[in-house]
Amino acid sequence: MLESLDLSYSISKKKAKEYLFSLKDEWRDLQLQIQEVNRPVLIILEGLQASGKGDAVRRIVAPLDPRGFHVNLTQLEQTEEERLRPPLWRHWLSVPGYGEIGVFNSAWYLPFITDRVNGKLDNHAWSARKDEIRQFERQLVDDGAILIKFWLHISKKEQKKRFKKMEKSTYEGWRISDKDWKAHKKYKAYIHTIEDILVETDTPYAPWTLVASDDRHNRRVHVMRTVTDVLKRCLNNPPPSHSAASVLSASIPSHPPEVSSILDRVDLTRSLTREEYQRELNQYQDRLRELEFVCYQKRKPVVIVYEGWDAAGKGGNIKRLTQKLDPRGYDVIPIAAPQGEEADHHYLWRFWRHIPKGGHFAIYDRSWYGRVMVERIEGFCRTDEWKRAYYEINEFERHLAQFDAVIVKFWIHLSKEEQWRRFEERKNTPHKRHKLTDEDYRNREKWDQYAEAVNEMLERTSTNYAPWAIIEGDCKLWARIKALKTVVEAIEEQI
Amino acid sequence: MLESLDLSYSISKKKAKEYLFSLKDEWRDLQLQIQEVNRPVLIILEGLQASGKGDAVRRIVAPLDPRGFHVNLTQLEQTEEERLRPPLWRHWLSVPGYGEIGVFNSAWYLPFITDRVNGKLDNHAWSARKDEIRQFERQLVDDGAILIKFWLHISKKEQKKRFKKMEKSTYEGWRISDKDWKAHKKYKAYIHTIEDILVETDTPYAPWTLVASDDRHNRRVHVMRTVTDVLKRCLNNPPPSHSAASVLSASIPSHPPEVSSILDRVDLTRSLTREEYQRELNQYQDRLRELEFVCYQKRKPVVIVYEGWDAAGKGGNIKRLTQKLDPRGYDVIPIAAPQGEEADHHYLWRFWRHIPKGGHFAIYDRSWYGRVMVERIEGFCRTDEWKRAYYEINEFERHLAQFDAVIVKFWIHLSKEEQWRRFEERKNTPHKRHKLTDEDYRNREKWDQYAEAVNEMLERTSTNYAPWAIIEGDCKLWARIKALKTVVEAIEEQI
Repeated sequence: MLESLDLSYSISKKKAKEYLFSLKDEWRDLQLQIQEVNRPVLIILEGLQASGKGDAVRRIVAPLDPRGFHVNLTQLEQTEEERLRPPLWRHWLSVPGYGEIGVFNSAWYLPFITDRVNGKLDNHAWSARKDEIRQFERQLVDDGAILIKFWLHISKKEQKKRFKKMEKSTYEGWRISDKDWKAHKKYKAYIHTIEDILVETDTPYAPWTLVASDDRHNRRVHVMRTVTDVLKRCLNNPPPSHSAASVLSASIPSHPPEVSSILDRVDLTRSLTREEYQRELNQYQDRLRELEFVCYQKRKPVVIVYEGWDAAGKGGNIKRLTQKLDPRGYDVIPIAAPQGEEADHHYLWRFWRHIPKGGHFAIYDRSWYGRVMVERIEGFCRTDEWKRAYYEINEFERHLAQFDAVIVKFWIHLSKEEQWRRFEERKNTPHKRHKLTDEDYRNREKWDQYAEAVNEMLERTSTNYAPWAIIEGDCKLWARIKALKTVVEAIEEQI
Repeated sequence: MLESLDLSYSISKKKAKEYLFSLKDEWRDLQLQIQEVNRPVLIILEGLQASGKGDAVRRIVAPLDPRGFHVNLTQLEQTEEERLRPPLWRHWLSVPGYGEIGVFNSAWYLPFITDRVNGKLDNHAWSARKDEIRQFERQLVDDGAILIKFWLHISKKEQKKRFKKMEKSTYEGWRISDKDWKAHKKYKAYIHTIEDILVETDTPYAPWTLVASDDRHNRRVHVMRTVTDVLKRCLNNPPPSHSAASVLSASIPSHPPEVSSILDRVDLTRSLTREEYQRELNQYQDRLRELEFVCYQKRKPVVIVYEGWDAAGKGGNIKRLTQKLDPRGYDVIPIAAPQGEEADHHYLWRFWRHIPKGGHFAIYDRSWYGRVMVERIEGFCRTDEWKRAYYEINEFERHLAQFDAVIVKFWIHLSKEEQWRRFEERKNTPHKRHKLTDEDYRNREKWDQYAEAVNEMLERTSTNYAPWAIIEGDCKLWARIKALKTVVEAIEEQI
């Protein structure tokens, strides 16, 4: 999930200041409303050391009436008293009362993450902690609480820079110790562990907001915008009367529009010459044929998902991927709108039907991600349904991964101009004309809406066990080789 | 949970037949309604071999229009095709469509249980299966499905009797093999494993109904009554529009009134003479004092919960339990209605505050079980809130158990007559008069409602890691010794 952030993005100090100033009154009004509806609000700032949690806390509480909030500074080390009680004990005690705001400078995440990285939690304890957190948060939300969780993500480089700066400062120097430098050296291990817990606790009732925090102005704007947006939506909706999930539709914040998105950052100039292409094509196709056989022997299933814009070249890409494969070992499964029996079941049902058996490849031309793209945009399902789907899809793919499947997911990206060129080409080429429909034009008009949905999908469903690969698709030759290469490497890594 | 069933209970063939006949038309009408509301219904019959699953299936489908239901016979062994796919694959495929009824003669429970008992699932795989089942069922219910899960419980003795009878039968003999006899010999291991999975999958959105099945007439009546009751309630309520938990209030069936309850079966004639009492009191108090010290050294926390009728003698019992203990090692925590800060938080919050630290005893005079007793009966919380509480409380106690706490929970039972005698005694004894309030009389008028709530509580929250002990309370001397003895044995077992 963290990979999806653009850490290089920055906004100007002036712009940030103006924006934050404009929010002040609104934020104060929201505090009054929180008291009126009598629900607890938990604003949780998590992130590595020097990611700016403290600054975020200060910005959040500055405009507020101090009688209505508490700031909780969670120590990484438990006290003697705390160690003698269950791990969540100290966190339960810090839950704000009805109508109060609790702001957490680190809460129940960083301490467990730190223990895990330092080898103090074995697999069993680590799983137990994640279970307990999910249960804890669900119990709170079921009781009416609004949870807003931020992960402030900084790069290793930026962390180093900040540590050095703090060390030089007279009144911040004491905050950086050997321990912090040791943690800094384990940056990669931290990120791996953080990814793991973020995915498993990105629940429909308490989703994460990931914040690119190398630039502090961007961090401030993103945090404050999300806090006010989420609260406005939650407070205008009736309080949850039945369960955690009923606050769903109010609680997933969208990507802030001014921050560059994952798709914005795709370099569409990537290309290959015909010769490079031919050489690499042969090489990777041969290798994939070998791997197909190895997977068969080892009974390892392989799941390959193709998603992308209309005319992104999925068909041709799949053709090159399968060209040299033994046809007994793979299935290509084209997915259109569900019909008949399929429409009469849970949306995941038809995908469960086509799960590859051990030793086989299943290649999906479009997939279960329709739920959070076309069904979302076209209103084919309710808002709470597609919002819930991110978590359901992560669970589904985890079931596959648990069964040792290799999972590769492609988003083939395209520039809007290239798409237009291809539409025109199809229109003007008799044997390609059937590929072009009115729907393609209609979808194109909704490009921005789709882009927003794709960005959120890439962010929320990219997991350690089932990552997305974004394929630069303006050059078809490049796209085909990148897909082949990605599949080959993913399989090689797991056998 | 299974312990709470009275396997000796039986009802007459005639009564059962009449009852089942009276349900026929209703059941057929319900089928039509299911088609109208277009929701899938899953009726799941689980139980050991010869517990009567097949008979239950026949009774359920007999009156139905065959176009609207499917019967799924789940084999314990997976086929070759199934083994090559994730464990839930075959079950996903068997999910009925919208408006259809799926009846399962064993579903996703017995096969996993069997593998676990036979050592084919290690701890990690066993936990993964339980997680997957919970997710699977939640996804279905979120999608509008109604899940009705039965566990048909039979005694070892009855199973043996049925096996022998079947062996002699010409057309059922083939059904009993060596494998079945082997499983029969592992009856105890099965029950232990079943308990484990029942507790963890007794979710608010898909609760279990436990059926005493030694008597087939009782089994038939209980199953059919539950199916019709649950469906009537679910179909009259609006379909779940937001999440699993919104079907909550419709889906937990209550204890069938004609079956003898846990409380009905308590033998209130148990008593001790003054001498027996004095001797055992000394002996157990001394032993408990020793154990207090051992727990302190081992940093083991002990949680003791006292619940019981008004005037059941909780105070005097706690006094004897703690009489010889070192006062630095225990706390008695009296629980009244939540006030102030406590009322301003989640109902479990105040109990988290008082969790004993490692090495200490916490003795609760009333407890978190108020949620499912007084708050339920007096309407201090909403129906969905107390229904959700069973699961939340099991989670809470699991957090404690995970932290290695010894957990002992007492329900001190009393006859209605004995309670009256004690009320009168209090009224007539000047120094006891303050103990008696108008509320006691009001509660007494609701005896039956409380009894129903207590029965459901004992059934749903008795777990391997936090079992209830029912104390026969008409003789106070007996009750005190039994409480002491139970605590001593529970601690001895865990150190």
